[in-house]
Amino acid sequence: MSVTPLPVFADVQAATERVAATAVRTPVLRNDALDERVGAEVFIKPECLQVTGSFKIRGATNRIAQIEDAAQMRAGVVAFSSGNHAQGVARAAKHFGMPALIVMPEDAPAVKVDGVLSDGGEVHFYDRAGESREEIAAEIARERGAVLVPSYDDADIIAGQGTAGLEFVEDLSARGSVLDHYISCAGGGGLLAGAALAFEAMSPQTKLWSAEPLGFDDHRKSFAAGEICRIDDGAQSICDAIQTPQPGGLTFAVNRARVAGGLAVSDEQIKDAMGFAFRHLKLVVEPGGAAALACAMFDLPEAARGKKVGLILSGGNVDAGVFAGIVRG
Amino acid sequence: MSVTPLPVFADVQAATERVAATAVRTPVLRNDALDERVGAEVFIKPECLQVTGSFKIRGATNRIAQIEDAAQMRAGVVAFSSGNHAQGVARAAKHFGMPALIVMPEDAPAVKVDGVLSDGGEVHFYDRAGESREEIAAEIARERGAVLVPSYDDADIIAGQGTAGLEFVEDLSARGSVLDHYISCAGGGGLLAGAALAFEAMSPQTKLWSAEPLGFDDHRKSFAAGEICRIDDGAQSICDAIQTPQPGGLTFAVNRARVAGGLAVSDEQIKDAMGFAFRHLKLVVEPGGAAALACAMFDLPEAARGKKVGLILSGGNVDAGVFAGIVRG
Repeated sequence: MSVTPLPVFADVQAATERVAATAVRTPVLRNDALDERVGAEVFIKPECLQVTGSFKIRGATNRIAQIEDAAQMRAGVVAFSSGNHAQGVARAAKHFGMPALIVMPEDAPAVKVDGVLSDGGEVHFYDRAGESREEIAAEIARERGAVLVPSYDDADIIAGQGTAGLEFVEDLSARGSVLDHYISCAGGGGLLAGAALAFEAMSPQTKLWSAEPLGFDDHRKSFAAGEICRIDDGAQSICDAIQTPQPGGLTFAVNRARVAGGLAVSDEQIKDAMGFAFRHLKLVVEPGGAAALACAMFDLPEAARGKKVGLILSGGNVDAGVFAGIVRG
Repeated sequence: MSVTPLPVFADVQAATERVAATAVRTPVLRNDALDERVGAEVFIKPECLQVTGSFKIRGATNRIAQIEDAAQMRAGVVAFSSGNHAQGVARAAKHFGMPALIVMPEDAPAVKVDGVLSDGGEVHFYDRAGESREEIAAEIARERGAVLVPSYDDADIIAGQGTAGLEFVEDLSARGSVLDHYISCAGGGGLLAGAALAFEAMSPQTKLWSAEPLGFDDHRKSFAAGEICRIDDGAQSICDAIQTPQPGGLTFAVNRARVAGGLAVSDEQIKDAMGFAFRHLKLVVEPGGAAALACAMFDLPEAARGKKVGLILSGGNVDAGVFAGIVRG
């Protein structure tokens, strides 16, 4: 039986140069109104300002940059995603001159579908209720001889997403500072796992927390149980980007030993956080991208009060009508 | 006759330490979609991410930090402003422990009035049509023995705003880069004048341009005429922050010899720029704050095509209803 090797910090370091081919280094922001609201010294890493509007370009680039077989390069890549990974893959594939096909749900936000199409990606819609996106994508990849680019459960994807955590630690260090706590949204857990490798190596005193919407709090449950738990079927959330039923096998293997615990918030609290980001941070954050902010506002661990808390705002791809409805309250 | 001395670059340098007491150093952002849209290599300085949501905290802090007379400190400060300077003054006064009263128009955006009130500032509303805010503010300042903090035509205000330009040049330099062009909105012209001092000293090859809404393009007309021109009465614009009828005397004296020319855009183009910022930059920019972006999109000087162009997004204080209406298109 073959065992997939877990990514290590050196993989995150190796990813930084590849990722720089497409991604920008997002800044670290401070906001006095946020500090007051949360009751802590909060540092924000706004990956909504990232190329394609989310951190997903990092992992996609790190994976696709390593496709070197000429036939595979011609056949290109296939992925399945509700939208942010879709755009990251389409953009990275375009950068490396490869075709990309993305399997997306019919109810994906229009802004995310448009992002894929505007980068020349091909979109194959599926029915979220009746079809398996994994099977469809695997089938298409097989037919084309294309490489399937997983959205989280892959060592290269995890290492690529980890560059966001590495930058965060470096930029705090440049200010002569260290985070006491770090809160990251968790869908499949790739962004959190990559950061976990970076923090373990570079900032081991920082306590890490996952942020999820209630109903999709599979990481919280899994951390509490010490094993992978699946959420109940039929859950609903406005957080289209992080509606994952359970942690990935690889991501959980990385996260379980390195993450302090899980936090969770309601959709109403997510909306409040998006409104706060509009009014005070002047940032456009999508529902899933606001999970960490909402957890800081509504589910902050007691130990984090008054401390240095880092938040990643993971994406900003939200349709104008949805955003308008939420910020008008 | 006494002559008010013009500010010089050393005043901008001296302001940086004072301004750091309240303001953050905003980052420089890059965005690939913007580069493509404008047809240039665009660098953004997002002062919408600044404390109080606009650059105005810089000048207000630089002025108020220099009030040292004990009686004046007790009496505090008075200002008149449609909102961004109002918030900057209220915050800076709060920081230095002084009372602040702001004369604001009855139709000022609610978000700006709220910003003043939440910092403990007192608001005195006036009727934009029938009353003179200058006279009201001067009268109140006289009664109280308070210091009137002008919104632009003051050497300390200009020097304070100039710290944004100084940071922009420094951060480009840290990337081994230099701006070929710089576009700044202009209401009274203080932000532009402060930057002009910084660019002249630190980046003399950069060409500077003012950005205004059509109808309030008094800087454009004044630069073309070589003397201060006043716009026609009765003009209307959604850019509440930069509806100034003519350049300031001091600001124009600084700007006329240092600015290449004036650019102007319609309200519809301003709205397009705000929508672009929402969709692609993931930034909340108010109408006046989007003037430079709109000019880059719709009125870019021919010489700037393909070059390095710096834009300042001067503020993000816009009511949710207005913003929602604009980004929904």
